[in-house]
Amino acid sequence: MTRAARPMRLGEIAERLGRGVAGDAALTIGGVAALDGAGPDELSFVRSPRWAKGLAASRAGAVIVPAGVEPDRPAILSPNPGLDFARAVALLVPPLRPPAGVDPRACVAADAEIDASASVGAGAVVGPGCRVGARSLVLANATLYPDVTLGADCTIHAGVVLREGTRLGDRVVVQPNAVVGGDGFGFAFDERGEPEKIPQVGRVVVEDDVEIGACTTIDRAALGETRIGRGTKIDNGVQIAHNCDVGEAVVIVAQAGLAGSTVVERGAMLMARAASAGHLRIGERAFVGAAASLHRDVKPGGRVWGTPQMEERLFHRVVAAMTRLPDMLRRLRAVEKKLGLRAARGERADAGEEGEV
Amino acid sequence: MTRAARPMRLGEIAERLGRGVAGDAALTIGGVAALDGAGPDELSFVRSPRWAKGLAASRAGAVIVPAGVEPDRPAILSPNPGLDFARAVALLVPPLRPPAGVDPRACVAADAEIDASASVGAGAVVGPGCRVGARSLVLANATLYPDVTLGADCTIHAGVVLREGTRLGDRVVVQPNAVVGGDGFGFAFDERGEPEKIPQVGRVVVEDDVEIGACTTIDRAALGETRIGRGTKIDNGVQIAHNCDVGEAVVIVAQAGLAGSTVVERGAMLMARAASAGHLRIGERAFVGAAASLHRDVKPGGRVWGTPQMEERLFHRVVAAMTRLPDMLRRLRAVEKKLGLRAARGERADAGEEGEV
Amino acid sequence: MTRAARPMRLGEIAERLGRGVAGDAALTIGGVAALDGAGPDELSFVRSPRWAKGLAASRAGAVIVPAGVEPDRPAILSPNPGLDFARAVALLVPPLRPPAGVDPRACVAADAEIDASASVGAGAVVGPGCRVGARSLVLANATLYPDVTLGADCTIHAGVVLREGTRLGDRVVVQPNAVVGGDGFGFAFDERGEPEKIPQVGRVVVEDDVEIGACTTIDRAALGETRIGRGTKIDNGVQIAHNCDVGEAVVIVAQAGLAGSTVVERGAMLMARAASAGHLRIGERAFVGAAASLHRDVKPGGRVWGTPQMEERLFHRVVAAMTRLPDMLRRLRAVEKKLGLRAARGERADAGEEGEV
Repeated sequence: MTRAARPMRLGEIAERLGRGVAGDAALTIGGVAALDGAGPDELSFVRSPRWAKGLAASRAGAVIVPAGVEPDRPAILSPNPGLDFARAVALLVPPLRPPAGVDPRACVAADAEIDASASVGAGAVVGPGCRVGARSLVLANATLYPDVTLGADCTIHAGVVLREGTRLGDRVVVQPNAVVGGDGFGFAFDERGEPEKIPQVGRVVVEDDVEIGACTTIDRAALGETRIGRGTKIDNGVQIAHNCDVGEAVVIVAQAGLAGSTVVERGAMLMARAASAGHLRIGERAFVGAAASLHRDVKPGGRVWGTPQMEERLFHRVVAAMTRLPDMLRRLRAVEKKLGLRAARGERADAGEEGEV
Repeated sequence: MTRAARPMRLGEIAERLGRGVAGDAALTIGGVAALDGAGPDELSFVRSPRWAKGLAASRAGAVIVPAGVEPDRPAILSPNPGLDFARAVALLVPPLRPPAGVDPRACVAADAEIDASASVGAGAVVGPGCRVGARSLVLANATLYPDVTLGADCTIHAGVVLREGTRLGDRVVVQPNAVVGGDGFGFAFDERGEPEKIPQVGRVVVEDDVEIGACTTIDRAALGETRIGRGTKIDNGVQIAHNCDVGEAVVIVAQAGLAGSTVVERGAMLMARAASAGHLRIGERAFVGAAASLHRDVKPGGRVWGTPQMEERLFHRVVAAMTRLPDMLRRLRAVEKKLGLRAARGERADAGEEGEV
Repeated sequence: MTRAARPMRLGEIAERLGRGVAGDAALTIGGVAALDGAGPDELSFVRSPRWAKGLAASRAGAVIVPAGVEPDRPAILSPNPGLDFARAVALLVPPLRPPAGVDPRACVAADAEIDASASVGAGAVVGPGCRVGARSLVLANATLYPDVTLGADCTIHAGVVLREGTRLGDRVVVQPNAVVGGDGFGFAFDERGEPEKIPQVGRVVVEDDVEIGACTTIDRAALGETRIGRGTKIDNGVQIAHNCDVGEAVVIVAQAGLAGSTVVERGAMLMARAASAGHLRIGERAFVGAAASLHRDVKPGGRVWGTPQMEERLFHRVVAAMTRLPDMLRRLRAVEKKLGLRAARGERADAGEEGEV
């Protein structure tokens, strides 16, 4: 369904992935697709034996299959087909790459250091003191305030704003219209009880291999640094407040939010809409369910959900019980009636209850 | 309150709407306003007989009224005053329209095809292979990546980013700083258990008459297409993940979110903050209440709310019961005491309970 | 940790704050930092006696301390150390200030009035009829549609879009990629039951000293004005719908949302993710807890939380009771068993219950 930039032989792909081939290694692969959309010169994949039923019906010319799935056509054998398919797609359909150099319609400060292999697009603005590393891309209409540093192989998409002093490592990808380094939301109440801004004079540091989603906002620290650790992946519309310290290989799904000074340890996952109150610690490899609102720490490996925050097992029991609340009320009344307890409490309350529920 | 671009006679407006007039059709209408802000040369409307009480006090020179409301001044008679007022406003106060042509400060690729009647504003960037249809507007600082296609009469507001390969139909409006075609959030876990990006090589297709709100993000498909159907209206700050398939005439209110591969059928409504887990189907003309979190399909015409997802009737009963939980606990303790059940469970638990609740 | 633009003597800082000094007023302050990061020429602060334990261990050269904390080094004595530290930071580390004048790569309409002391950055677009007041900054790639007015000392960050007719007072700060004046989300259903856009012909008016966060969206009114009152502070990712009327000195934290025509009175606080249904009134100095969903008015001074909206005291009791729901169900069953009530309701229901909860 998506055509390759240049066709490759199945054997070459397998070799690049470090995997073996079953069947015709000379088959030419001209594109990639899901099983149900693939054509005869396209590569697809079977995630696990559970998905094998889609294989027979597929017109895919070749597939990546796990152990336990019989390859009925040319195939690459993989212990992790999802991962190897991702890598095969990266080989066959490399991302857009504008030519190296600074577009004449870009505006780059005289003292900014742009590596000769980097690319700065039309309408992009790069402020004084910035450094853009080898092969990094600053796309159209992106804005780098003064003193921003990008490592090598970064992609700063169109419309992104990196405020002054922001530091990005290597291979960082920032999706369109994300904002890194905006002012944190800090206010002191003045003599009249009205909010007065606390200047936000820290910065944001983003380590290697981080991905930041579209329209996501990561605020600069009030003092010191807001930090996003190596390999962390952040989806769209996420808000990360000032002074957060997000560890390595963390996953944060869309529309999640971290209040100020939240610490997220290595390998934790926050699902969509998860939110944390400020100054909490989310432990290593913890899991925070969708839409959970944290108001206390999560221990390493912990799995929590809900509002209020609950351990996963309790949460599922509470959620199931919630839908039975009207029934519980009715049963409680029946018990009270049997015991003669209702009469003592008065008919009026009872009537109100019936009316409300 | 809002002045007309050019005054029109009441009769001319009525004729354009296909409605009849009561009273002086020659009255000149110079602006539009709500009942309580309208002046003697302005047109207002009465949505339904329920809103008629505002009419007597209004200084409006003319009104659009439904059956059942006595016109006490020049009036247009309408079976749907809200709709006809919207259309009258469109006649009297047409949207801003920059002049046709490419601004000398825009940056348009040599091979892009821009219709002569279209407008491309200062700072806008239009990539190679793009096509911009008749009378479409690409406003200042918008960015079209390579191979983007716009139909006729589209409005792409300032700061919007349309990533490579995005297809828009006719009359599509994209509000400022929205992002269409950003990478989907797809990761495979590598040998060390760390997230590795799955290239997102699909695209976004938006059909005719769609509206997309400010800072809304619609991700490109991993493979294949993310699709937004004809006539669908999407508010601000909405997140639509990769491979979603949103049908025709759907309404999605602010800050809602759809996880990957959600299917939304024709005419469904998702209220503000509604969210869907991935791979669900929201049936035709279904209604999803504000802040609901879906974890299973919604049947056609279904009305669901809440977290967990509940049918509307149950939801209202559960919500009412929730506020009575502390009272229920107290009553349950009284019952247990009467039956001598509490003693058996120990005073300690009881004390803890008092402390917590 | 953050160095001063120019060093100042402690006594000079105290004088500017109107406070007294204990110890060496001639000490040179070269930067600002939190207690645990401050060096010997840096100023820090102790928020309240509760935070005094960090002082002894700090290497800070000077501190701002409240009554009740013994200054063990040069110090400024303050009744409100947080506020005075904020003001000291503003003195020592003033925000970036690009040079006055219009960058040659900006695009400013011939009839726009730009004060000679104002600054318009590269790639910024300022439409016809705009006015930019004294010392205001329009940063790179910001877009002002026609007829936008900024007062004095405003900062419009990169990527911000101000739609036509928007009015900003003095000292308004708009963080990157925020959108002010996008179309409100208004639709009438047409003859086929499909949504048809209601033109949004009102505007947004923002009074003095307002702050608007990154990727926040404030919609223009359908008719009339959406208004943000003097001194109000709005965080990132907030959505404010058409015709809202937000009073003075209101605080709205990240990812909150106000539906159409919400009125927020002076001094109210909406915590992160708080949401309001349309046409509600949130009273003066009311407090709306994080993630609360309002469906009715909040009285002046009221404190509400939750979904459904509850008074603070009830909310805390309900939340505590929720986690005990599975236990309550079990106890209710025990009571029913003792009374012989369960048998009458059938074993099947009971089995289902055990399975679910």
